[in-house]
Amino acid sequence: MHIKKQRLLTPGPTPLYPPALHAMMASDMHHRTEDFRKVYSSCVAGLKEVLGTSYDTIPLVASGSGAMEASISNLFSKGDKAIVCVAGKFGERWEGIAKAYALNSVVLREEYGGTVAASRVAEALAANPDAKGVFIQASETSTGAMHDIEAVARAVAATDAILVVDGITGIGTQPLKIEEWGIDVLIGGSQKAFMIPPGLAFVTVSPKAWKRAETSDLPKYYFNLKKEAKSAAAGESSWTPATSLMLALNEALNFIKSIGPDKLIENAQLLAKAARAAAAELGLELFSPGSPGSAVTAIKAPAGMDSGVIVKGFKQRFGAIIANGQGTMKGQIFRVAHLGYFDFADLFAVIAGLELILVANGHPVKLGAGVTAVQRVYAEAAGIGV
Amino acid sequence: MHIKKQRLLTPGPTPLYPPALHAMMASDMHHRTEDFRKVYSSCVAGLKEVLGTSYDTIPLVASGSGAMEASISNLFSKGDKAIVCVAGKFGERWEGIAKAYALNSVVLREEYGGTVAASRVAEALAANPDAKGVFIQASETSTGAMHDIEAVARAVAATDAILVVDGITGIGTQPLKIEEWGIDVLIGGSQKAFMIPPGLAFVTVSPKAWKRAETSDLPKYYFNLKKEAKSAAAGESSWTPATSLMLALNEALNFIKSIGPDKLIENAQLLAKAARAAAAELGLELFSPGSPGSAVTAIKAPAGMDSGVIVKGFKQRFGAIIANGQGTMKGQIFRVAHLGYFDFADLFAVIAGLELILVANGHPVKLGAGVTAVQRVYAEAAGIGV
Repeated sequence: MHIKKQRLLTPGPTPLYPPALHAMMASDMHHRTEDFRKVYSSCVAGLKEVLGTSYDTIPLVASGSGAMEASISNLFSKGDKAIVCVAGKFGERWEGIAKAYALNSVVLREEYGGTVAASRVAEALAANPDAKGVFIQASETSTGAMHDIEAVARAVAATDAILVVDGITGIGTQPLKIEEWGIDVLIGGSQKAFMIPPGLAFVTVSPKAWKRAETSDLPKYYFNLKKEAKSAAAGESSWTPATSLMLALNEALNFIKSIGPDKLIENAQLLAKAARAAAAELGLELFSPGSPGSAVTAIKAPAGMDSGVIVKGFKQRFGAIIANGQGTMKGQIFRVAHLGYFDFADLFAVIAGLELILVANGHPVKLGAGVTAVQRVYAEAAGIGV
Repeated sequence: MHIKKQRLLTPGPTPLYPPALHAMMASDMHHRTEDFRKVYSSCVAGLKEVLGTSYDTIPLVASGSGAMEASISNLFSKGDKAIVCVAGKFGERWEGIAKAYALNSVVLREEYGGTVAASRVAEALAANPDAKGVFIQASETSTGAMHDIEAVARAVAATDAILVVDGITGIGTQPLKIEEWGIDVLIGGSQKAFMIPPGLAFVTVSPKAWKRAETSDLPKYYFNLKKEAKSAAAGESSWTPATSLMLALNEALNFIKSIGPDKLIENAQLLAKAARAAAAELGLELFSPGSPGSAVTAIKAPAGMDSGVIVKGFKQRFGAIIANGQGTMKGQIFRVAHLGYFDFADLFAVIAGLELILVANGHPVKLGAGVTAVQRVYAEAAGIGV
């Protein structure tokens, strides 16, 4: 027990794909050269392939929140009515940005752990035929819940509104068929299923959304999607790009393409299924039992135990960083991540560690029971008869 | 001649400090942990020390242009009158951002290669007593010219306006005494004298500027300086920070502190002096002879030669990337950089290569003459009698 490897097991930043990390060592490149234009173009093409879209796909030097802001400042105008789905901390971020830009928000709120039903979105659109847009999270990272983006998209597609999906943790963990379903804007971030450090965000823009850009009257300069789309087509960015992160992204995208974007999603889904099975086996409740997503499984701490005890236990006993709850959920839940470069060996270790931490803190569980639940999910998927 | 090392010799991105580059390999850190808060706090303290200020100093995940925008969207209001000094491509960027945010700009324009005299700023302030701010570049990267920030600052300090200085290439190449002179906002970028890859920007904010934040009515969310200043004081950032770049920055700041921030400036100044001496020796004209800065020396190509020939010559013959002119200056000038991790050995090689490239392209110069001019500057500074 004298060696405790540092393990980053959070839903963002996520574990790094080593060759992508190492690729950053070649960062002594100038961005206005043919060598770098090849990297940039390859990243843009790779993002489109992994996201399954021919729509303009624009990298930005920003955290995901910057891309969320860009989708509002570039595609909406002051006073525009917008339907904002809020079921967690990141839904609240939509609400905050819409307020900062003086949109007229119709907020569809659900309790933390819940989801906004597509039928509520459809009703809100019917009641507000002047709505210009709908904002939602694919996966609400703070609660682990997943929205039914297909149903929401089909409801929005029938209207003049555009659908803006924060897919920052959803991408790579649930299908998001941009063109088939009608996702006008999909937002991603580098430090999630893309397996590289934070600092890059991505935005896809549909032709329907581009029309909005023509009339948008909100101030913007650094995040100028039209300008960036034009630059990206030429293998460049308008401002100095984050060269080190683009080098990493290129490597990670090659890996994701090699396994297949669908397999990346399936990987997260299987791990999430196994994590839910382990929680059930250990008598722990899910925080979002109604529609648990596959990016992260939010699990309630046992009654009477602060979830911080579990988070600290992982850090102190096993050198592993797992996520506590955010905001008012802090102390109530802990979150086991699955998005990106996670595998079953990670989950075996997490659940085995969790069992020991629970026992050590006076919550008796049968050692190995949760791990066995994970093993069973693996065995079934791998065709191992048990 | 079969080995040509890749050398990045541009005024941004600049050559990388290797230990800073290598520090990025430890990027598997979560940003909401004590371990990372130490890194973040150390970066903020290090930036303050290197910049020589006790003012709030705020890192942002963005290119420098994002920080320029932040200074406008956070500290000004719609219709505010602003004096905008424009003498190159980056001055034009101030003009563009001010326009995007509907400021009422009084533009003080000079030809490329010139500088806006402090006396013009003082006159404009006298003629526009309602001016809320003055925007200027410390070093105009596109032309190599340096503004007299001390004189401009003293003129602005006597008024109600705040002085916002784009120090993106100026920092580390010319003294910028924030508190003594009255620089209300100083903007920097990671890929310049800080010797690390692009993707981070920094903003210092004076108490006088903070007062403006109280009444600013421009929309902002991602770039919220008040929120970020509060977060930074707690060793955090509001949004997910660029962990890899902060690790690199911490290492680079330790290096800069070890040699001394003044010595970093002196290093650039000596190299710039030597580059000017070499240009004179080779009969080449400076693009900004009136007030050449020390970040980058812009040199005119010989009459009848496109400067692209020189840029390509460096790439093809010596694997070195040097900068061409930007915009209408492309083809007219090439730029030899000095900011950050540059040394005399770099400059010996650049000037020796330049001499050969000039000769190879039909512009006879005496081989070694420029190099000797550089050697003389070194010898004088190092106390070597020649």
